[in-house]
Amino acid sequence: MPNDMFLDNLTHTLKERGFGKNNTLVATSLCCDEVNRELEKGLKKTFGDNFSMGGLAGFAFGGVTSFCAMAHHIPTNGNCLVIFGPHVGVDADGVVGKVNRRGRAHSGACCGSAAAAASYVSSVRKGVSKVSDNPTDPLDAQQTYVGNMLLPYGTRLALAIDPAVELPISLYDAQKALIDKIVSKGCGEVGGDGKIALLGGIQINTPPGTPDYFLPMSFELLDNKGNKLANMIGTLRMNRSNEDLYALIALGMFAATLFYVM
Amino acid sequence: MPNDMFLDNLTHTLKERGFGKNNTLVATSLCCDEVNRELEKGLKKTFGDNFSMGGLAGFAFGGVTSFCAMAHHIPTNGNCLVIFGPHVGVDADGVVGKVNRRGRAHSGACCGSAAAAASYVSSVRKGVSKVSDNPTDPLDAQQTYVGNMLLPYGTRLALAIDPAVELPISLYDAQKALIDKIVSKGCGEVGGDGKIALLGGIQINTPPGTPDYFLPMSFELLDNKGNKLANMIGTLRMNRSNEDLYALIALGMFAATLFYVM
Repeated sequence: MPNDMFLDNLTHTLKERGFGKNNTLVATSLCCDEVNRELEKGLKKTFGDNFSMGGLAGFAFGGVTSFCAMAHHIPTNGNCLVIFGPHVGVDADGVVGKVNRRGRAHSGACCGSAAAAASYVSSVRKGVSKVSDNPTDPLDAQQTYVGNMLLPYGTRLALAIDPAVELPISLYDAQKALIDKIVSKGCGEVGGDGKIALLGGIQINTPPGTPDYFLPMSFELLDNKGNKLANMIGTLRMNRSNEDLYALIALGMFAATLFYVM
Repeated sequence: MPNDMFLDNLTHTLKERGFGKNNTLVATSLCCDEVNRELEKGLKKTFGDNFSMGGLAGFAFGGVTSFCAMAHHIPTNGNCLVIFGPHVGVDADGVVGKVNRRGRAHSGACCGSAAAAASYVSSVRKGVSKVSDNPTDPLDAQQTYVGNMLLPYGTRLALAIDPAVELPISLYDAQKALIDKIVSKGCGEVGGDGKIALLGGIQINTPPGTPDYFLPMSFELLDNKGNKLANMIGTLRMNRSNEDLYALIALGMFAATLFYVM
């Protein structure tokens, strides 16, 4: 759904659970790409400035330490909202995996890190490249991690009707696995009776002037022992099947086309 | 100097070099901590949404891939501004290394990642802890990297008049070393005659209602072969000695005190 509608639904759901503007800290784990600041702007309006745990492709590379630091910044007796996920562009010609950028005549890769990781995974599957050792130097560690965390999804990507659509879905699953480990290790640092709202989804970036879309994939309420108190995904979308993503991308294409025709 | 004044000077200097709103992409490498969004908001007003290369403590953990991706997003024939650096809080009682946060009665560590790294470095120097192996798992890789990149500055920290003031200065030097390597490897991806303005400094966070300060430490103009075309630091500050930092922190304490007295 368009970001504005998503943010309205999200705010409403969280308000019912006691998450207000003054007692909630929002932590984002979105990709470095500047097109993702738009969603953060929307979140800031409701919850104030965001802690940022994310790195390339949206993985929560700030890790356990970043979650624990964030937990120590939560207003006393308050809660946190952690929102994570990959992103995918849809350009003005409807091409999934590309986006039109300010001041450039042609659309370009979006998400670029994801595209590079998919290329690496494909190359490993074909036997052209070897599996990279996990890095020991921070100079370009993140991209190697992105590639290796995408590797288990190689078959899904290879068999997908549209690999460009499957890519963010696979990345979402890989990111969910990482953030679950992080929250499991760090949740005890949330003070008092504080709750953790853990929301994962796929950001769909569209041409300038068209609203971006957010596809919620999971939305859980946890206590600070890691117990799942509620599954709230139903408050944000009708169903969880991947058809939703195809529908949303089609909608994004429609909106984009409309924008360029008008 | 206060962020507003810093941003005015920065915009003026860059304008003279041909960096305008429509042809410049800004990339930040600031810490995850939500107190650093304030500076990004100021930058957005002038240059639009920021690419985000940063992770814990402000290190450019997005690495070479993030710089190259950013370079591919620059408007055609345009330039980029890369701004990086650690941050340090000054709380309402004038304590350096702490900050007052929304909804919390007592001030807390700022930067928390830096404080944890300094504690690790001190512990290694005393022989209490061993040097950590560089990580091979992304779960908490960044904090291990922060600690190990701070290790060479252990003597400086141990001998400093005020280790809390020396900490961000040492982190700045460590971050400058990393970003120089990243820019050296990635600069060729900046297209055409595009320039790279590489600006490093220390963000000083103050209590809510008081302006934050930015202490510029280096400001270089590079071409896309990595050649240094100009040293522009003189346009942002009078001199580069560390006394400036002490003076600014004292000023921050004064402003903070004033705010609480008023």
